[in-house]
Amino acid sequence: MRKVAIVGGGGTKCGKRDANWRELVQEAGKTMFDNIDNLSPKDVEALLVGAAQPERFTFQVHVAPMVAEHLGITPRKVIATTELMCASGQAAIRYAWACVASGMADVAVAFGVEKMFMPDMSEAQTNMTCVLDREWDGVNAMSAPPFFAMTAQRHMHEFGTTKEQMALVSVKNHHYSTMNPLAQFQKEVTVEKVLQSPMVAPPLNLFDCSGITDGAAGVVLVPAEHAKRYTDTPMHIIGSGQVSIGNAINNLASIAEWVPLRMAVKEACTTAKITLKDIDIAELHDCFTISEILEYEAFGWCEKGEGGKFIEEGEPYVGGKIAVNPRGGLLGSGHPLGATAILQTLDIFQQFRGEVPKGRYVSGAKTAVAHNLSGAANVHSLIIYSRD
Amino acid sequence: MRKVAIVGGGGTKCGKRDANWRELVQEAGKTMFDNIDNLSPKDVEALLVGAAQPERFTFQVHVAPMVAEHLGITPRKVIATTELMCASGQAAIRYAWACVASGMADVAVAFGVEKMFMPDMSEAQTNMTCVLDREWDGVNAMSAPPFFAMTAQRHMHEFGTTKEQMALVSVKNHHYSTMNPLAQFQKEVTVEKVLQSPMVAPPLNLFDCSGITDGAAGVVLVPAEHAKRYTDTPMHIIGSGQVSIGNAINNLASIAEWVPLRMAVKEACTTAKITLKDIDIAELHDCFTISEILEYEAFGWCEKGEGGKFIEEGEPYVGGKIAVNPRGGLLGSGHPLGATAILQTLDIFQQFRGEVPKGRYVSGAKTAVAHNLSGAANVHSLIIYSRD
Repeated sequence: MRKVAIVGGGGTKCGKRDANWRELVQEAGKTMFDNIDNLSPKDVEALLVGAAQPERFTFQVHVAPMVAEHLGITPRKVIATTELMCASGQAAIRYAWACVASGMADVAVAFGVEKMFMPDMSEAQTNMTCVLDREWDGVNAMSAPPFFAMTAQRHMHEFGTTKEQMALVSVKNHHYSTMNPLAQFQKEVTVEKVLQSPMVAPPLNLFDCSGITDGAAGVVLVPAEHAKRYTDTPMHIIGSGQVSIGNAINNLASIAEWVPLRMAVKEACTTAKITLKDIDIAELHDCFTISEILEYEAFGWCEKGEGGKFIEEGEPYVGGKIAVNPRGGLLGSGHPLGATAILQTLDIFQQFRGEVPKGRYVSGAKTAVAHNLSGAANVHSLIIYSRD
Repeated sequence: MRKVAIVGGGGTKCGKRDANWRELVQEAGKTMFDNIDNLSPKDVEALLVGAAQPERFTFQVHVAPMVAEHLGITPRKVIATTELMCASGQAAIRYAWACVASGMADVAVAFGVEKMFMPDMSEAQTNMTCVLDREWDGVNAMSAPPFFAMTAQRHMHEFGTTKEQMALVSVKNHHYSTMNPLAQFQKEVTVEKVLQSPMVAPPLNLFDCSGITDGAAGVVLVPAEHAKRYTDTPMHIIGSGQVSIGNAINNLASIAEWVPLRMAVKEACTTAKITLKDIDIAELHDCFTISEILEYEAFGWCEKGEGGKFIEEGEPYVGGKIAVNPRGGLLGSGHPLGATAILQTLDIFQQFRGEVPKGRYVSGAKTAVAHNLSGAANVHSLIIYSRD
């Protein structure tokens, strides 16, 4: 298995964009190629496109070949779209990784795109009911906000977690996103503002929830031994974990503890031959504020049930125990489904190069984790990156 | 890169099934596990699900974790859905192959499912407009039948190919499908019957076109060195080719010649270290009768323009120059998008084991190719299998 490096990429500004999905692809693609030395579109042998549901949002299938067309590439080895709902972008990275690691391709692009704003936004909301099993959980009125609200209720009941503690996650991530030019949200929020924002599903208010977002991004993967052709600062994939258990809510291992995440963290650290303490930056999947709190616990940065206290004490800030979501997370930067993981990965690359503003820069960082979850938090995917 | 073997699988009867997509998954999954010795659901580390547009046909996303649930497996390494429209199933096989080849997983299931019959079949037809670029080609009234009809028109004009010659492809494939218990169509057709069937898009009549089909299937991939744990007759992946050029019709290299297929054939034979003459069985993507004719030519079994004559002379029959689609092809067996490539692969496996009826058995076959195309025939994917 060949060691694989990421040598750069590019992404769009995220948010409610006055651009169709093709224009987003072109914008991210141009930035990606402009950013990487000695990379020509004709060098790309594999293209993997993370897209959660272009079939519904833009009524298009066969998306990867269309992306290839708009990037001006003709993949001669591998091409496919990958779908894993909110983790679709990480699925693209993982497939691109497998292509390069196995020797099937020497230059692979992992791309992500999602155009979520629709002329009729009630249709976009309808599409998002498919985050969970629409047929089995949807009939019980379960889509993402009520499911994560139930998780929050249970966590509050079991461990005394408060709405204020959850709000602090939103405060932190919106703070960092003001320093991320690609981020959807560019304004600070306060605990009061979060608590006074419209109720979505008790106890989750609007600013406890990540947004509907348009965006696209791409990163380029090559064998580590070729990386210096393209950049002086490659970053390497050194480990990963991905665990899927159950799907329908009645089949989950637990509501208030993410068992598959705990397993995936162990697998990722073992394969990367690191311990938790080696991780300097954590790009975690904060689709809701409660998600990030459960993630502190599942990673093991604090004891089970103490995630609320962990944010209260400022531990997940830059300079704290572990810098969580210095990019601004999904809460601050937006969540363009298929593009989310690519944007996380790109930001880690830029952190390692020291290209991010001082207020969110993790000085001297050498190791980072990117994490996504999907569905009823039944699938968790992690990749560990190192700049060495 | 580890050598990879397929050790068995299972599939459903295809057609208009009185079963929802979950029931199709369960049926194929049970057959798959029943068919493979010493394989327990808990051994499966990777699950890749080929599905073209469950988002539209069944209004579900996050399909792979739901399939995992219905198969009773908890993939601990890799999970994703792969989409490449009509080649979605082969995309799943290729990703599963990359997982095992790279060492990311030791037991990978490549699965495919598509439930295409809908309560309102006009909606299914609408979905199928996404075979091509709905926004760019769709506005010019181009969906799959008119596009392949245009290909046929051009081929007739340039090379004198006749409707009777195209009909012979349908006659052959329906003949073989009568001997395939999983096939959708179980009746012979004649040239007259094809020519008298309703006109779909001139010159293509109904029996020149593959059907709307429900179906599911799965195959299991393991490292070649483990294969004998599961079967005495593993089949090995020995080479592949996949080329994507253009997408919108105005960007194609040619209408009446499939340039990317010619390139993919060369790549597949080179990587497999074989020549065309070594191939005993060809499972080709006969979405329309004209497709198979262009494929005879692009593979090089006959000269360019002589595909019509090739079928007229009986060359693609069992016992002829090359046995093309002894399974019954898409024309005879149906085309459940994401499941199609899995069913092709499964049939090759059964051919190698001598488990198919005599009338379609290719005695002594050692090497086979499985081929799929997608979109405006701009993407072609091939895998070469060997029983040694």
